Amino acid sequence: MTIRIFVTGGTFDKTYDEIEGALTFGDTHLNEMLHLGRCHVDVSVRTLMMIDSLAMTADDRAVIVRNCLTCEESRIVVTHGTDTMVDTAAALAAGVPGKTIVLTGAMVPYAFGSSDGLFNLGSALSFAQTLPPGVYIAMNGRHFSWDRVRKNKEAGIFEET
Amino acid sequence: MTIRIFVTGGTFDKTYDEIEGALTFGDTHLNEMLHLGRCHVDVSVRTLMMIDSLAMTADDRAVIVRNCLTCEESRIVVTHGTDTMVDTAAALAAGVPGKTIVLTGAMVPYAFGSSDGLFNLGSALSFAQTLPPGVYIAMNGRHFSWDRVRKNKEAGIFEET
Amino acid sequence: MTIRIFVTGGTFDKTYDEIEGALTFGDTHLNEMLHLGRCHVDVSVRTLMMIDSLAMTADDRAVIVRNCLTCEESRIVVTHGTDTMVDTAAALAAGVPGKTIVLTGAMVPYAFGSSDGLFNLGSALSFAQTLPPGVYIAMNGRHFSWDRVRKNKEAGIFEET
Amino acid sequence: MTIRIFVTGGTFDKTYDEIEGALTFGDTHLNEMLHLGRCHVDVSVRTLMMIDSLAMTADDRAVIVRNCLTCEESRIVVTHGTDTMVDTAAALAAGVPGKTIVLTGAMVPYAFGSSDGLFNLGSALSFAQTLPPGVYIAMNGRHFSWDRVRKNKEAGIFEET
Repeated sequence: MTIRIFVTGGTFDKTYDEIEGALTFGDTHLNEMLHLGRCHVDVSVRTLMMIDSLAMTADDRAVIVRNCLTCEESRIVVTHGTDTMVDTAAALAAGVPGKTIVLTGAMVPYAFGSSDGLFNLGSALSFAQTLPPGVYIAMNGRHFSWDRVRKNKEAGIFEET
Repeated sequence: MTIRIFVTGGTFDKTYDEIEGALTFGDTHLNEMLHLGRCHVDVSVRTLMMIDSLAMTADDRAVIVRNCLTCEESRIVVTHGTDTMVDTAAALAAGVPGKTIVLTGAMVPYAFGSSDGLFNLGSALSFAQTLPPGVYIAMNGRHFSWDRVRKNKEAGIFEET
Repeated sequence: MTIRIFVTGGTFDKTYDEIEGALTFGDTHLNEMLHLGRCHVDVSVRTLMMIDSLAMTADDRAVIVRNCLTCEESRIVVTHGTDTMVDTAAALAAGVPGKTIVLTGAMVPYAFGSSDGLFNLGSALSFAQTLPPGVYIAMNGRHFSWDRVRKNKEAGIFEET
Repeated sequence: MTIRIFVTGGTFDKTYDEIEGALTFGDTHLNEMLHLGRCHVDVSVRTLMMIDSLAMTADDRAVIVRNCLTCEESRIVVTHGTDTMVDTAAALAAGVPGKTIVLTGAMVPYAFGSSDGLFNLGSALSFAQTLPPGVYIAMNGRHFSWDRVRKNKEAGIFEET
């Protein structure tokens, strides 16, 4: 079984630009993280975009849906910014039937030592192997069905609705 | 749902003794790791022992079995050294029916920046929530039934038998 | 010999706000860094302000000068943002005669694993113990007299003028 | 001014062997550390040996002395295990006149996130630029003349004698 991983950016992959003194996007850290986790699951990683999820448009979501629909794998992990993760989950639920799709991200960039990213990635890959077809959000050890979750922006956590 | 976590030591929790210049055991890093992963799963952590799994005796295994049997939770994660993880899994399979028990560990101590521990912990907690009753080993993104796995000591990986 | 350390903020001490998804200032990381370096030099740390050096006003600089002038220690390290470090060095050179003052900072926040902060702090404390009275900038292993240095903002490095 | 760095091993450069589950030596971490510190001092790194300082023989010390004597640089940093650092310092003081030689090391391997190595390296490179000819030990922010220092093995620190 191969798990497809689609990278879309988000806090997960933000990095620090030394010259500008600001957070920015470079290449994804996904492969480095899989290496650190000594991941022995068969995965296939593809970067679709590298953006802040607040900047994600309907067209961007259509790209994600199309890639999940047409890829041959039936178990998929999507890394995504947390702010609009629920919106993309809804688009995937409407457009991609019969596959197990798990969206995950991070509250703190992986490039920070204090990131939850590696924990979330291990968790998302595991849920993607065991959950039945459907669209899920996996954050901080928990998993939520796409239609029963919201981000509590004050507390910075995902919670059931 | 509360997940019970039993700590037994292993590479996962090894730390560096500055005075002796050697690897040793102190307190578990489990709570620090759950904090780093911003874990929002309800967990209950208990340290049963803090030893190298090569030093684990039949009596030690009986302690682990008894604790898994008598705790009220039906979903359990056991952190364990990798060298004899398969032996403890067999003891648990013989002694604790009807619960989902996931053993996990690390190839590199968590105290090292390059550890797979956080990835494995996120993974084990996720498998513990979704797998049916049985005893499993979860390492490096994969999960194995207790009776279909061995540690390949040359390669330093777990593989199916 | 006690070395006085004055904290003023800068990249050195920036941290990541999980709720806002942006870089911000919290408490200083100085004590944590001294602990990590197992620093056995006698130091006395005081936070004067916690700001981006681009936001530093003439009044802020007057506060730094006054504290360096009136403190009883004659060897001082000032942590500072890199963008206007040279300006504060000039103010100190004009206002604080007869003391060894070393300004230092970081190109990447200490909270990032990839920071130069710990290296720079070890360096600055060492220069502060050995250089004659004067005002210096210590960055990335080098030290510069306050009147012979500029920040090359394109390259992100300090260089002699 | 170029600073010569001679690598001899020690805790500084110990790494974790995943297969054996033990501390060992691989390649030096010096270049990675200089990169992390964004070191802009002109340095020239050479590995002389990669051993635990408890295993260092008189012949090994003769190799270190000869290299420090014959290299063209007059400012030298030697990375070294802490247990016999004082002995090598004495050999260097007897055999290499007229150069500034700074020995440094770490209480915890650099490969551990909790290492003092980066702090010590920044410090040693700075002392090597500013101290007069002589042989010194630089650890944890302090510097000691070779004939006025001992390692307090109970406390794990260097102290004046």
